[in-house]
Amino acid sequence: MKRTALSLLAFALGITSMFAQQAIFERQNIVSPQKNDDGTVTLRLRAPEAKKVEVMGDCIDGYRKEMNKGENGVWSFTTQPLAPELYSYRFYADGVELQDPANWNRSRDVRSFMSTFIVSKEEGDCGYLYGNHNVPHGNIQQVWYDSPTLGMSRRMSIYTPAGYEKGGSYPVLYLLHGMGGDEDAWLTLGRASQILDNLIAAGKTVPMIVVMTNGHADNDASPEFTALTQRGRQKASFEESFPEVKSYIEKNFRVKKGADNTAMCGLSMGGFHTFHISLMNPGMFGYIGLFSAAVRMDRNSNKSIDQQIADDAQVSGQIAAVFKAKPHLYWIGIGKTDFLYEQNKGLRTYLDKMKYPYEYYENEDGHIWRNWRIYLSIFSQKLFK
Amino acid sequence: MKRTALSLLAFALGITSMFAQQAIFERQNIVSPQKNDDGTVTLRLRAPEAKKVEVMGDCIDGYRKEMNKGENGVWSFTTQPLAPELYSYRFYADGVELQDPANWNRSRDVRSFMSTFIVSKEEGDCGYLYGNHNVPHGNIQQVWYDSPTLGMSRRMSIYTPAGYEKGGSYPVLYLLHGMGGDEDAWLTLGRASQILDNLIAAGKTVPMIVVMTNGHADNDASPEFTALTQRGRQKASFEESFPEVKSYIEKNFRVKKGADNTAMCGLSMGGFHTFHISLMNPGMFGYIGLFSAAVRMDRNSNKSIDQQIADDAQVSGQIAAVFKAKPHLYWIGIGKTDFLYEQNKGLRTYLDKMKYPYEYYENEDGHIWRNWRIYLSIFSQKLFK
Repeated sequence: MKRTALSLLAFALGITSMFAQQAIFERQNIVSPQKNDDGTVTLRLRAPEAKKVEVMGDCIDGYRKEMNKGENGVWSFTTQPLAPELYSYRFYADGVELQDPANWNRSRDVRSFMSTFIVSKEEGDCGYLYGNHNVPHGNIQQVWYDSPTLGMSRRMSIYTPAGYEKGGSYPVLYLLHGMGGDEDAWLTLGRASQILDNLIAAGKTVPMIVVMTNGHADNDASPEFTALTQRGRQKASFEESFPEVKSYIEKNFRVKKGADNTAMCGLSMGGFHTFHISLMNPGMFGYIGLFSAAVRMDRNSNKSIDQQIADDAQVSGQIAAVFKAKPHLYWIGIGKTDFLYEQNKGLRTYLDKMKYPYEYYENEDGHIWRNWRIYLSIFSQKLFK
Repeated sequence: MKRTALSLLAFALGITSMFAQQAIFERQNIVSPQKNDDGTVTLRLRAPEAKKVEVMGDCIDGYRKEMNKGENGVWSFTTQPLAPELYSYRFYADGVELQDPANWNRSRDVRSFMSTFIVSKEEGDCGYLYGNHNVPHGNIQQVWYDSPTLGMSRRMSIYTPAGYEKGGSYPVLYLLHGMGGDEDAWLTLGRASQILDNLIAAGKTVPMIVVMTNGHADNDASPEFTALTQRGRQKASFEESFPEVKSYIEKNFRVKKGADNTAMCGLSMGGFHTFHISLMNPGMFGYIGLFSAAVRMDRNSNKSIDQQIADDAQVSGQIAAVFKAKPHLYWIGIGKTDFLYEQNKGLRTYLDKMKYPYEYYENEDGHIWRNWRIYLSIFSQKLFK
C-alpha cells in the first residue's frame, strides 16, 4: 500500500503543482556540474535567448569567463583539471547574476550566494574532508545565550562529537568567523562539522566540542534568525562579552575545563577577536590559532607593527602574560598574497624578538575560505594531545 | 582600535575580493522586494539586456507574469495588496530561472530554490508568527540517531522551547514532513521554530519539544548532509522504524512520557506516516493531526474510501484500537482544492459512521506550505492542555 500511495502522490503532485512541474521540465537533461575523467569539470546553463553567458568563481582562474553556446541553447564551460577542493561559482546571463539551476549545492556568504561543488581524488584529501561520508557524525546545536554585556540574547552554533550522548567530558575549541560571517559561516562555507567528523573518524583529531559564535556585537543572530540588528549601536565589544559564551558552554555541556582543554582560533576579524580575547584572558587558552588574522593596525602610524606592539605597554604586557602562562600552541597561519600578510609578519617579528614560541604556517593564495578550511584541518589535529 | 580595525578590514576586503566587489556593485540601488504603503509589494530585477523578464510565485495569482522594463534596465512587477503570509517567488530572465539577487531570503524545497518575503500587518497575524521577534527563543539541535531497522545512522531536527536548559520535563510533538521534504523542511519552509517561539511567548501554545524527522526511509539525511541515499532500496518503512526515534528522544531529552504528553502530526506523506504510525501504536499518541494527509488510496478500486477502510479488517481494527484509547484530539485539516480532499472526505465518512470523535478544519487552497503552516499554528495551540 505504501508504494501505491507514494506513486500516486508523485503523480498527483506532478500535475497539480506548477512549481514542481516547471522545475522538472527545466532541469531535464542539464547536468551541471559534470566531473570529467580528466579531472576537469563542465558547468552548463540552458539559456537559448541569451547573447552572452559568463561564469565566475574560484574553480576558474581569474575573473568572469565567457561560456560557449552549444545545442539546444545550452551554454557550457570546462575548467582546467582541478585539485581536490570545495569550489564555488556563479553564472551571469546577459549580465544577470544567477546560481546554477541544475545544482542544488549552494552556500550563503552573508547575503550573497554561490553554487558549490567538491572535488576529491582519494580518501583523506581536502575535498574528502569537506564531504559527507558514512562515518560517525557529530551533532549540531543552535542555541541562544544571554549576554547582559551586549544587552541581548544571542545565537551560536555548537558541534558535539559523535558519542557525546554516551557520556564523558570533552575539550572545547572556540572557532570564530570573519567580518563577512555569522554563527552559520563555519558550518556552511567552513565545513567545520564535516572536517571534524572525518578527522575524528580517521583518528587524526581528538573528539572535541566546537563552539561557533556570532562575532558581530550589534547583531543577535544570522540574517535568517535575527530580530535585532543594530548596526554600529553595540553596547560593548564581542571580546568583552566572550566570558558569557564560555560560561554558557561550561554550564550546559560536559566540558573538560582549564587551559589544557580550551582552545580558540579565528579567521580575519575572528583572528583579531582571538588575539584580543586571549590577551584579555591570559592563561585561559592552552591553544591559540590566528588564521589570516587582523592583528594590529594603525593606518596612520609610520612605525612598524612590531614597534607599535613594543611601544604599547598594555598590549606588550598582555602578550607577555599570555606566553608566561606557557600555552601548548600559538599558531599563526596566513597565505602569501593575503592583504594582512604584513601585519602578521610584524607580529611574528615581535614574537621572534621576544623569543615567544609559536608555530607558523604559510601557503599560497590570500584571504579566502579555501585557506581557512585548510587551517582548521591542520590546527584541529594539534589540539588536546 | 576596534573601529579602525573594522574599517580597514572593510576597505581592504572591498578592494581585494572580486566577489565582494561585484556583489556590492550589482546590488546598488535595487530594492526588492519593496513593501508599499498600499499593501502591494514591488519586485525588481536589473537585466538591461533581457528581452523578457517574468516572475512566478504564490504572491502572484496564476502562472508566470511578465515584468515591466523601466529605467536603467530595471524590470519591476507590483503585486496586488497582499494579506499577511510568507510568500515565495522566482524570476525568469529570457527563460532562465533565477532567485532575486537583491533578496537574501531564500528557501530550499528539496533541490529547488525560491526567494521569499513575509507580509505582516499586526502582532499575532500569520506573517508575524512566521517572523523573528525579540521573544525568548527555543534552540534547535540536529542530531544523528541509530536506526537498526533501516540499517543506518539518520539525522533529525529537534526544537527545545526557551527555558529548556533551566530544567523540567516537556511534552513532545513529532512533526513529520511531506514527500518533498526532509528534516530541514519544517524549519525552513514550515517556520516551525518561529511559530512555536511566537505562540509560546504569547501564551497560546504550551512549551513543548518538537521532533522533525526525515521520513525517507532510503535516505540518512537532507541533501546537504547525506552520505547515503539509496533510492528505493529501503530495508523497512519509516513507520516501522519510528520507535527508534521515540526511544532516542526519551533517552536524550527530558520528556514527559505517556499519551497525554505525546503528539504526532504530519503533512501529505507525513500525514500518511502519522495515520499509519498511530494505527501501529494505538494509545501511544494523545494528539494526532493529519495535515492534507495521504490516507488510503487504492487507485484501481471502485469502492469508496470509507468502504475500503470498512472492508479492511486490519485497518478498521487498528482504527478502533486508536479510538478505544480515547485520544484527546484527532484533528484533520485540508484545503478545499487539495488533490487529497476526496480521500480525507472518505476517511471522515468512515469516522462519522463509526461515531469516532475528531475535529475537522477546512480552508481555501490546496496542497501547499501556506496551509501546513496554518495547520501547525492551530494544532499546536490545542496540545497538552
